[in-house]
This record gives sequence, structure tokens and C-alpha cells, in this order.
Amino acid sequence: MGCSEVDASTAADALLSADVRGVDSHGVARLSGYVRLWEVKRVNATPFIRVIHETPSTGVVDGDSGLGLVVAPFAMEQAIQKARQVGSGWVSVQNSNHFGIAGHHAMMALPHDMIGIAMTNASPLVAPTFSKEKLLGTNPIAVAIPAGIEPPFVADFATTTAANGKLEILQRKNQPVPDGWVQTEQGLPSSNAHELKEGGALLPLGSDREHSSHKGYMLGSIVDLFSGVLSGANYGPWVPPFPAYIPMPDQMPGKGIGHFFGAMRIDAFRPAEAFKKDMDQWIRRFRSAIPVAGQPSVLVPGDPEREIAAQRMQEGIPVLDAVLKDLQSLGDRFSLAL
Amino acid sequence: MGCSEVDASTAADALLSADVRGVDSHGVARLSGYVRLWEVKRVNATPFIRVIHETPSTGVVDGDSGLGLVVAPFAMEQAIQKARQVGSGWVSVQNSNHFGIAGHHAMMALPHDMIGIAMTNASPLVAPTFSKEKLLGTNPIAVAIPAGIEPPFVADFATTTAANGKLEILQRKNQPVPDGWVQTEQGLPSSNAHELKEGGALLPLGSDREHSSHKGYMLGSIVDLFSGVLSGANYGPWVPPFPAYIPMPDQMPGKGIGHFFGAMRIDAFRPAEAFKKDMDQWIRRFRSAIPVAGQPSVLVPGDPEREIAAQRMQEGIPVLDAVLKDLQSLGDRFSLAL
Repeated sequence: MGCSEVDASTAADALLSADVRGVDSHGVARLSGYVRLWEVKRVNATPFIRVIHETPSTGVVDGDSGLGLVVAPFAMEQAIQKARQVGSGWVSVQNSNHFGIAGHHAMMALPHDMIGIAMTNASPLVAPTFSKEKLLGTNPIAVAIPAGIEPPFVADFATTTAANGKLEILQRKNQPVPDGWVQTEQGLPSSNAHELKEGGALLPLGSDREHSSHKGYMLGSIVDLFSGVLSGANYGPWVPPFPAYIPMPDQMPGKGIGHFFGAMRIDAFRPAEAFKKDMDQWIRRFRSAIPVAGQPSVLVPGDPEREIAAQRMQEGIPVLDAVLKDLQSLGDRFSLAL
Repeated sequence: MGCSEVDASTAADALLSADVRGVDSHGVARLSGYVRLWEVKRVNATPFIRVIHETPSTGVVDGDSGLGLVVAPFAMEQAIQKARQVGSGWVSVQNSNHFGIAGHHAMMALPHDMIGIAMTNASPLVAPTFSKEKLLGTNPIAVAIPAGIEPPFVADFATTTAANGKLEILQRKNQPVPDGWVQTEQGLPSSNAHELKEGGALLPLGSDREHSSHKGYMLGSIVDLFSGVLSGANYGPWVPPFPAYIPMPDQMPGKGIGHFFGAMRIDAFRPAEAFKKDMDQWIRRFRSAIPVAGQPSVLVPGDPEREIAAQRMQEGIPVLDAVLKDLQSLGDRFSLAL
């Protein structure tokens, strides 16, 4: 596409980080989608990414329509630099694109003995509580916290009941989805895995009012406001769609997609060694919780992805035929050997 | 109890803020509970609350076992001061007690054109996904964001499917609770509103694995780690219980209960006026979303509490007989006219 070597490598890292951790929906399977966005000139392959406003602990980055995979690490690095100097750093981003897997960016803080936070808004697929209309994206939140002997705590989750990736798995198998994952175009309950293509919506974490879907709606809103409104990006129903064939919304209030990043130095609160000792105790206590009869053992956020990563680093990453075909045709097109 | 006039007034403000906003479970109904904690010397009525560690944008406050109702505003004020100077302020608190309604503290940021954040850990009542044991509190998160002509966005929610207050209402009516709110001591599904008294647990937001209870578990964990581990307070199953008759846990790893506060100056990101114009547009767009047939109109976080507050400021705050009796006997005991 004309990206610099450095940017191409940064973007590849972000995609492979998803594939190795088992989040296949955010890995190389998306590469052709990014290329299509570049083809319709929504992605700028050679962006001038820069800080357009800042204070000692905050800043706004203009991504210049670059790949989010490249803009996000730049912004997270700014947050880390600020945390190094004044204890914490908080960077909101405008004019960006889909940034891949949130956890990858949050985890950049870990080697610096910092807590890392990453979130992003996304194309509207989610209906707020009581709404027929789709006004929010799956708006994920990632928080990475260093530990001592134990591996880090890494939470990374969409603020919906079901991740899009899980829906796609059931689509391929032509199986029904559980109650509370999606609603029809009219807002009625549905078990159709293809409901989104028929005008339906994903539901916020909590599924329905009785199970506190308003809390999932609030979480998704906070992500949208920190990422979109605080930066001057688009927000709510005006966030640009990921599929390049969907036209851009009318009267967009901001620039591109928005992200939000944070970094907090552990020793800006208490000595890192004492903190890590407590983290180890926290992690061990939760992992050793007595499980309900017949259920698996209690996990600590990050455990499932670490298990898959360990396995895939040994055995390789399985790639679906459709994805392989996609990569091959991209290779042909850009005269690159796969 | 011997609090200073200023502290008593600060604490009363926090309690009344809950009552007027309709969060009766966190208002004056709790007063006798705080007094009982003072009687068993878990609450210090004349604390020396102080910052024990800080950087330009972060700090740790030692609450000296004071009422959380008094410690929390002190810590939030520190966060606001730091935000004024370097753009944002983040304060973790150790050695505190129950701080009342989270939203009240987060909203302190609003008059300063800042975003306010407040969270706290709490006595273990919640079982993580797959766990029989209760290892987390209801660990609420509050985020208050200023708008322009529209009222502010105020999200304030427990990271569980059901708030304890809703459970109490069904207890009084002797009615069953919906599926997915609580589990039995053995971790089985239950509709018993009294389940917690029989060794059962509240469930994290999401209710079960199929509806992503692991996301509610992750949220509650993040609150616990930011409030408890980052400050040097207690965490997880070691958080001190609210009822004074329940003995303290063995081998507590930290001091008291922990909180976490944040303040971000809007104009540390972009001009406040431009931000507020976008906030107004966001709020209007969401409030005017087309509702599902037969459902109420779509609300914006803060709307329900504002409606109740407007009504109660006119008509007064209804108080249950049991609460009135409680207040009367407190009045008698401390020779105060009710």
C-alpha cells in the first residue's frame, strides 16, 4: 500500500498479536479489509501522525487517517512518555481507523512497570437499552496490569454481551445464537446468527433491562465519549463503518474513528515491588477459588489468551481456507510471495 | 460521634445526595450502620486524612480509618487540583470506609469543566465466573461528563447484574428475583431474594458465561485492583465487611477499604465549548433514538436520577418507617432532635 517499512512492521505486529492470542477476528483475516479501505481512500498509507494539543499529563493525537494499527502505538507511546514524566499520561485520538486488538496496545505499558489502558469507538452495531436504532460500536476496553512472578492481568473485552467474532463462528456453522445476544430490526428477541445483516443489532453487556443492559450501554457510551467526543473524532452513529462498501454517514461531526489510551506508572502510587507482591497474591487467590461443581477452574483475565498463545507459538497458527485465499490474492496483487 | 462540623456536613451531603437522587440504599438509611462501625472502632470520627505519596498527576491518600463519606471528597479534591495543574489527576485511597454513592464524588468535577471518575471496592458478595466463593464486592464505577445546554452525563453503576438495593426491595416484598441475579452457596441458579443470607452470592454483570459474566468479573476486578492494590488497601476477599457484627478477615494484606478517583480537565484535550457542543449533540441523538415498540423512550445516563431528584426537591423524600425509627433512636442516643 506504500506504508513505510517501520509502519508495516508495527501494523503486522498488532495483527499477529491478535492471531497468536486466539483473537482470529482481529488478526490477518482483516488485512484485506484494511486494503479495501485504502482503495477507497479512507486509509492514508503515509500519514503524518502528530500531537495537536497537550498538557503535561494529557494530549490529543491526529492520526491523519492512518491505519489505526499504526496510530494507536504512536498514541500509546505518548501516554507512556507522559507517565514517565508526571506519573500518568492520557491520550485521546481523532482521525484514525480500526486499531485491531485493544489489549495489544494496553500491554505496551507492561515492560515499563505501568498500567496500560486502551479503548476505541467503532461502527454502530449496538442498540442502547430500549432503542431500535444502532448507535454504538462494540467499543472495547482493555486494561493491562503488571504482576511479579505471576503473568500480568490483561482484561480485553467488547462492551456487548457477544463479541462479533463469536457470532461469526455460529454464522459459519449455521447455528442459532443464545437469547440476549442480538435483536431484530424491530428490536425483538432473536436467535438468528445472521441478524445483523438483516438490520438487527448486537445488545449491550447485560442483554436486557432486567439483567442491566443499561450498564453495558453506559460502558459503551463512556468509551465512545472518551474516544470520540474528547478527541474531536466522530461518535455514536456517525463513526465511519469498517466495510469499505458501506457509504460514510451524512453530516459527520468529527474526524475519523477515535481511541483513548492511558498509562499510569505503578511507582507513582506505591513502590512497584510491593504492588507486584500484592498482584501475585490477588492472582493466586482468584485462580485458586473453589469452582462450582462441574465447571472449569476460575480464570484470571489474560489466562485464556496466554494458553492459546503458548500453544500457537509451539504448533503454529491455524488459518481458515478463506483467509488463506484472501492473503494469496493480496500477495498476487502486490507481487509479494506468501 | 465527635466528627468536626465540617466533616459532619460533608458526610450529610453525600448521604442526602443519594436520597434525593433515589438511591435510597446509600442515603440516611445507612447512618446507623456507620455509627455501629464507629462503636466497634472501625471508623475513626476524627481522622487525619493526608496524601502519603504523590507525583504531579497522581497520589495516594491515607484515610486514617475515617468515614469514606469524608475521605472520598478529600481525595477527589486532590485529583481536581492536580488536573487543574497538569491536565489530569488520579488518586488511589487506602485505609478508608464505605464512601456512599459513587456518582456524588465523580460529580464534584463537573463545576470545574472536568470529567470526574470514582470507584471503590467493597465487602465480598460477588462470585467470579465459575467460582463458588465470593471474592469481589459490588465495586461500582461512576463517570460524570459535563455537557453544555443539556444536563451532564452521569453513569453510576455496580459491576453486578443486580444492585443490592434492588434485591432488598424484592426481599421486603418476599418476591422471587429474576434468573441470573444470584447463585446458591453451591453455585447453582436461584430465584431466592434472601440467597445472600444463606451463603449465596451476587453474580457479575452478564450473569453467566454464555452472557459474558466474565466481562462483569473483569470490570469488578479492575475496580478492586485500582482501588485496593494500587493504594495499599485491602482487596478481593479481604475487604472489610460493612456490617459491624461480621468479624474482620484474617491476615488482611492492606489497610481498610480502597477507592480510586480521577479528574480530567476538558480543555486539556480540546476547547471546552466545542466539547460541550458535541456532548449536547450526543445526548440529543441518543435521547431521540427510536424506541422499540412498547418500550419507554431511550434514556441518557443520569436521566432517571435527575427525574427523581426534581420530584423529590418538590415533594420531599419519602422515608421508610424502619429508617425513620432508626433515625429517631440515633437522635435519642446522641440527644439530637430529629
